[in-house]
Amino acid sequence: MEFKDATLPEIEAAVREAHVAFLSYKNLNGKKKGEFLRAIADEIEALGNSLIQTAMQETNLPEARVVSERGRTTGHCRMFAQLVEEGSWVDARIDSAQPHRVPAPRPDLRKMLVPLGPVVVFGAANFPLAYSTAGGDTASALAAGCSVIVKAHPAHAGTSELVASAIRKAMIQTGMPQGVFQHLHGAGFEAGQALVKHPLAKAVGFTGSLTGGRALFDLANQRPEPIPVFAEMSSINPVYLLPESLAKNFEKTALLLANSVTQGVGQFCTNPGLMIAVDNDDLKKYIKRLGEEIIKTPAGTMLHQGIANNYHKRMAESLAQKGVSIEAQATDAGNNRQGRATVVSVSAKDFLKNPLLAEEVFGPFSLIVKCADVNELNLLAARQHGQLTSSIIGEEAEIEKFQSLLNLLREKAGRLIINGVPTGVEVVPSQNHGGPYPSTTDSRFTAVGTDAIKRFVRPVAFQNFPNSLLPSELKNENPLNVFRLIDGNWTRDQVK
Amino acid sequence: MEFKDATLPEIEAAVREAHVAFLSYKNLNGKKKGEFLRAIADEIEALGNSLIQTAMQETNLPEARVVSERGRTTGHCRMFAQLVEEGSWVDARIDSAQPHRVPAPRPDLRKMLVPLGPVVVFGAANFPLAYSTAGGDTASALAAGCSVIVKAHPAHAGTSELVASAIRKAMIQTGMPQGVFQHLHGAGFEAGQALVKHPLAKAVGFTGSLTGGRALFDLANQRPEPIPVFAEMSSINPVYLLPESLAKNFEKTALLLANSVTQGVGQFCTNPGLMIAVDNDDLKKYIKRLGEEIIKTPAGTMLHQGIANNYHKRMAESLAQKGVSIEAQATDAGNNRQGRATVVSVSAKDFLKNPLLAEEVFGPFSLIVKCADVNELNLLAARQHGQLTSSIIGEEAEIEKFQSLLNLLREKAGRLIINGVPTGVEVVPSQNHGGPYPSTTDSRFTAVGTDAIKRFVRPVAFQNFPNSLLPSELKNENPLNVFRLIDGNWTRDQVK
Repeated sequence: MEFKDATLPEIEAAVREAHVAFLSYKNLNGKKKGEFLRAIADEIEALGNSLIQTAMQETNLPEARVVSERGRTTGHCRMFAQLVEEGSWVDARIDSAQPHRVPAPRPDLRKMLVPLGPVVVFGAANFPLAYSTAGGDTASALAAGCSVIVKAHPAHAGTSELVASAIRKAMIQTGMPQGVFQHLHGAGFEAGQALVKHPLAKAVGFTGSLTGGRALFDLANQRPEPIPVFAEMSSINPVYLLPESLAKNFEKTALLLANSVTQGVGQFCTNPGLMIAVDNDDLKKYIKRLGEEIIKTPAGTMLHQGIANNYHKRMAESLAQKGVSIEAQATDAGNNRQGRATVVSVSAKDFLKNPLLAEEVFGPFSLIVKCADVNELNLLAARQHGQLTSSIIGEEAEIEKFQSLLNLLREKAGRLIINGVPTGVEVVPSQNHGGPYPSTTDSRFTAVGTDAIKRFVRPVAFQNFPNSLLPSELKNENPLNVFRLIDGNWTRDQVK
Repeated sequence: MEFKDATLPEIEAAVREAHVAFLSYKNLNGKKKGEFLRAIADEIEALGNSLIQTAMQETNLPEARVVSERGRTTGHCRMFAQLVEEGSWVDARIDSAQPHRVPAPRPDLRKMLVPLGPVVVFGAANFPLAYSTAGGDTASALAAGCSVIVKAHPAHAGTSELVASAIRKAMIQTGMPQGVFQHLHGAGFEAGQALVKHPLAKAVGFTGSLTGGRALFDLANQRPEPIPVFAEMSSINPVYLLPESLAKNFEKTALLLANSVTQGVGQFCTNPGLMIAVDNDDLKKYIKRLGEEIIKTPAGTMLHQGIANNYHKRMAESLAQKGVSIEAQATDAGNNRQGRATVVSVSAKDFLKNPLLAEEVFGPFSLIVKCADVNELNLLAARQHGQLTSSIIGEEAEIEKFQSLLNLLREKAGRLIINGVPTGVEVVPSQNHGGPYPSTTDSRFTAVGTDAIKRFVRPVAFQNFPNSLLPSELKNENPLNVFRLIDGNWTRDQVK
């Protein structure tokens, strides 16, 4: 199916409509927004098999994966519905007036979070459902009370169009302001750039390449009025394999990592692209076992030709670097849209000399860095860029001896994992899918979990407001029964 | 007193030391950080009269103001001490493992806020104590667990040096890591630019001009690794005078506003630089009464010659604009470092045609915009830039009829005030001293109140960690007794 790129007048109209819709949508209570988000989930499910088939056709993802991604998408819509229905997410704070304070009386002051405005969301290539049209960015922005303008990813424009139709149905069903959700196509950069530069756009959510994310970040910061961009971009998710554990569990660890590297043809932002270990006989055994698994992995069709081409190019580049050698590679299926699982290795010395080796190879690829000793392993950690995740495979007593490594890794990543793999991102309040640059453009926020809503809100304080004029969340009688910090105490009580 | 500008090698050494100090300081518990912050407050008080005299001499602020600013400074140091001693600010979240979940088990996931790293703080011209060396930026960054590098404001370098000596004493007394606080001088731009560009600097706090703040913001965003800048810059704090209230209370309102405009020679970021009202006889009476107060205000000596020169230049520029006329002006004291209180007026039509009139005139100056009717008043509101505050003076029943104005102003400001003035910023949890651009560079954060700490922290998730390796705030037994979101419920309970 072909979709026409949005023209500049269409983009202008979309943002203006999103702006007008925002001015009424922002005032809807949590119950209404919750209904809308639940209706979106229901309507996505009502698309039934046609959505699954379209997504499979456009992305070559297997049915089980698309079905599970749909579950994740409807799941986060309902999770955000629940969050805003309950209402305490607005982080209400109340400090009572002290009319008799000397030298000057203290006014009544109350504060809560309010939405930023229209948010531009870019569909992600690697998650046609969970990080695209009704993905985490859209769901969290709508939950916050923002209107949303989605720029569909051209690689799965049909899937995006179907999901957009579901959202439009949900809008009508639940009586949402017209224009609160906008959906545009654009194969080139122009549409996205025009959206980010539009004066009425107030924030941006993006998941994709470092080049793309940084370009949008720069564009947004160069505006007369800069706006926040949360771009989730590039991470190689180092896994540190500690020696005692490797000696004991090389086989179990090899199976765990082989599965994580090759899952979904390696097309996850949390793919473990780097393994770091001390070079010894145990590591040899580990690599041998890992290689056996890698070799027998059937080559998988990648999401689109561009991603496949990039994988082949970046892999060839890596292989051409000094000291890099192939440890194991799956058979070439003779189809240039397929990605062969590949594990290569290099010495720590060569790795440290060559910044290119620290760049992401998006696909079922991992680089094993062989360290002379534990000191070199620590040095490797110190030299890492910002990451979404860092993992340690080690015995509990062994990790106790690596406290300085743990201390250091906290500065390098948004999520630390012990004896597990980075793939598999739970959608829960304690999730942090973010991290220092270049994994994201702002390490203070997450793209997954309930806190993703914080990217799209700002506090507003209300001073000396009569009760009648306060937002419900801040009224004395607490009609929404939300949790509030009143004069230093968290409570659901009324203001006395 | 003369202070030598920091050289590039001195800047390099300061940031490196701050980085090394950070790596141990970040792990100190809240009790230790609290001791440090309380010792800073004590040592500032121990400076006694020499601090007050130095600040008065350097800034020409009157004694009462400097004493009260010292109280605010020691007050926020102790407020942040209390915040970190209690500990719940880390926003701990715990989602328990579900080992038997199908199709895949759910891992144990826990999250909390951790400090960003070394923070560069720029002393503010207009707050030699409360927004300079031990100001809100420094106190909140230290509370977060960040090390701090202060670039002293050259206009009160001696005051800054004294406060720095107090902080150094507090460091030694409480056994803080050497280098956790660094203090540099720099009269030109070079030192500040070098600090913001340094790869080991991880965030910036700034209070000052739009030009200065935007330059630092741009510089930080152009780094290979961009870092967050919270710059509080430019706000004219519109006050909307509604007609019914003005008819009834013109005298009371005039006294209130005259005091707010002239307080501290108008050198507050919350100075009410714009008053907007419907042009009628009541407004004339208001302006007359306001003028009587303005004229009798003694001209005050401004903070430094640069600010005074800028005030005279910007005032002359405003007066030269089409349609602008002087309503009242205090006597010229014949000293070019003094600022004469001045109120001018313009029609809404002329105001709307001339963007220069919406720019800040830093000093005891306010522009009254006369609207033909309520529609024009609403239009004026719609055209405002982002502000720290917006105020409405109106009868409660009257404001009910201006719901759309209230709705609109929420998009324009970080704090809304009813029947009060923007000056006077309470340091409480419900404070929001921030707002849409150009009032700050990121409307999602505040520079005042306990939430100021959020500018300098980021979440880290800990997946599948053995209890022994978790930070104290996340351990099962909750040794610090902090509030945590455990499986969806806020509680101080242990994890069962």
